Amino acid sequence: MTDHTFYMELALKNAQAMKGQTDPNPLVGAVIVNDNRIVGVGAHLKAGEPHAEVHALRMAGEHAKGGTIYVTLEPCSHHGRTGPCAEAIVAAGLKRVVIATLDPNPVVSGNGVKILEQAGIEVITGVCEEESRQMNEVFNKFITQKTPFITMKSGITLDGKIATHTSDSKWITSEESRKDAHHLRNEHRAIMVGVNTVLKDDPELTTRIPNGRNPIRVLIDSHLKVPLTAKVVVDQQAETWIFTSQNADPDKEAELQSRGIQVFRTDSSEHVNVQQVVEILGERLVSSVLLEGGGTINAAFLEHQLIDKVVLYLAPKLIGGKDAPTFLEGTGFAKMNQAIELSATQIEKIGKDFKLTGYPIYHS
Amino acid sequence: MTDHTFYMELALKNAQAMKGQTDPNPLVGAVIVNDNRIVGVGAHLKAGEPHAEVHALRMAGEHAKGGTIYVTLEPCSHHGRTGPCAEAIVAAGLKRVVIATLDPNPVVSGNGVKILEQAGIEVITGVCEEESRQMNEVFNKFITQKTPFITMKSGITLDGKIATHTSDSKWITSEESRKDAHHLRNEHRAIMVGVNTVLKDDPELTTRIPNGRNPIRVLIDSHLKVPLTAKVVVDQQAETWIFTSQNADPDKEAELQSRGIQVFRTDSSEHVNVQQVVEILGERLVSSVLLEGGGTINAAFLEHQLIDKVVLYLAPKLIGGKDAPTFLEGTGFAKMNQAIELSATQIEKIGKDFKLTGYPIYHS
Repeated sequence: MTDHTFYMELALKNAQAMKGQTDPNPLVGAVIVNDNRIVGVGAHLKAGEPHAEVHALRMAGEHAKGGTIYVTLEPCSHHGRTGPCAEAIVAAGLKRVVIATLDPNPVVSGNGVKILEQAGIEVITGVCEEESRQMNEVFNKFITQKTPFITMKSGITLDGKIATHTSDSKWITSEESRKDAHHLRNEHRAIMVGVNTVLKDDPELTTRIPNGRNPIRVLIDSHLKVPLTAKVVVDQQAETWIFTSQNADPDKEAELQSRGIQVFRTDSSEHVNVQQVVEILGERLVSSVLLEGGGTINAAFLEHQLIDKVVLYLAPKLIGGKDAPTFLEGTGFAKMNQAIELSATQIEKIGKDFKLTGYPIYHS
Repeated sequence: MTDHTFYMELALKNAQAMKGQTDPNPLVGAVIVNDNRIVGVGAHLKAGEPHAEVHALRMAGEHAKGGTIYVTLEPCSHHGRTGPCAEAIVAAGLKRVVIATLDPNPVVSGNGVKILEQAGIEVITGVCEEESRQMNEVFNKFITQKTPFITMKSGITLDGKIATHTSDSKWITSEESRKDAHHLRNEHRAIMVGVNTVLKDDPELTTRIPNGRNPIRVLIDSHLKVPLTAKVVVDQQAETWIFTSQNADPDKEAELQSRGIQVFRTDSSEHVNVQQVVEILGERLVSSVLLEGGGTINAAFLEHQLIDKVVLYLAPKLIGGKDAPTFLEGTGFAKMNQAIELSATQIEKIGKDFKLTGYPIYHS
């Protein structure tokens, strides 16, 4: 491990510790080193408060001069609520800046580096780049594409099933995995399911952990089949938004609206237009969605290349059954070379299960 | 790590190094320690040659006296080709014996320990027990049940599929996984597939690694649909055994036999009786089978509780498709609490894939 990596990892640790409290800003951490001694650490704590570099510079004080600052995200160049960090770094007399990732916003990306280099400061980029990018994956997507970062989550058996052929699904995964999945809900702005899940399980779709924050419940329901007695309609525990098609019954729509449910008609007549769903969610500043769909809805989102991340809880169990549902159905791809591969896959043990994460690489 | 574990792991390493060369004997390693110094190591090298303890005692010579021997399997008590090791240990004057696993053969299990204890030697058992048991899992099953240890192996996508809905399956897994799977073939006495695999892929079912040993090719073919031109029938690269039902065409049977293929009729009329298959294989001293079946044959073996171990190569890919085949089909279990759980699961990365192994726990 080079020194650069050592210090950047400390900056990443500080940044990650603020997960959930910086929204809508990204997680950023900074470390200042002078003469082989750490003289300042900082992190962005909260939107409206100073950036990570400013905290680290304050802690370093005079010791910043001639030193190196490690910062997980390119220092900003704009005069926002806190002033451009790039200029503050120049003013503090640092001689070197080590950056994990450039600003994901193409409009300003590279501008911070330019200010630093014009002031004669040495700039090194790309140290721990992948870790930093993953840390802010939601922010990076939303800032550049204005649509939510969508994570498809499923708890499956080793043979890919999400239920037996008689639709029994309690429980596939261990208690530890289910708890971990509630942490996932807590980290997302919205949770999305298809109406079949509501018809079958009548779930609450809430976050059942201490101090859990409930995401917006998003229902894909082409024909407004959701019962007016469903928990997501009546329990008032979180907002419920329903996406439907042009064919949906206006009376049912009015009934739902009278219960405080938002109903969005996408422009298609038969099935909900999933592309439009994500656009509408983006317009409403929903930056992240946890997709807990069944095999049909998952396949629809995957085919439209809308899934950014996959999280699978693999239970070490076998069910079998030609007719037992898998988490990815639809028609599927015809040829293996069309299969969607996941990059940067990671696996960890959770209780008896394995949690696998990865990022789909779409064929263009 | 206690000292006991340290020395036993060395004994296990020596035992494992002989994998494939001790058949039909188990893998066994031994280490002798005296005054905190290793004075002897040994392993069983080949059937008919000395046991591990004898090699270690010879190396230790006079230094064995008063020492401790670590041995991965209970020292034998019988007068076979090499004399009872338990008595050799007594004669050498050791004061302590540390054992990983007792003899799996219920007829003699514990007898070695008895001889040692009667001679006043301290005996400790169960050090690294699980590792030792797994190392000889094939031997342990075969010696006690006289039927083969069956490993179900499959290369699957993350959604459990073994092919697309159009039956394309080249390739699910990476080159590294496929190479690893050839090592699995090399370690098994027989490889088993269903006739559909032959009809679809016309595979050779050979071991394509340097110095690879080809297993016996076992085909489950209830109605003798195998083409007389199939590679497994004509290529002479390895023996081919076909299991069929009472209904199979006698002329086709004679045709196959005239080509050197062994045909076994199990006592059922419609489908091959898989229970009888394993009994016949056991009678013919086939101690291990690698099952590379499709979803139907895998399900049949699992339902009959005949699978001892599961090896899955998980490719980080998604195919989708309600009609894409999974590696475990049949009817499947109706309820989640009937699902078969795997114990002692382990996962490792192979190329881009994950290799998962585990042992089914059957409901009695």
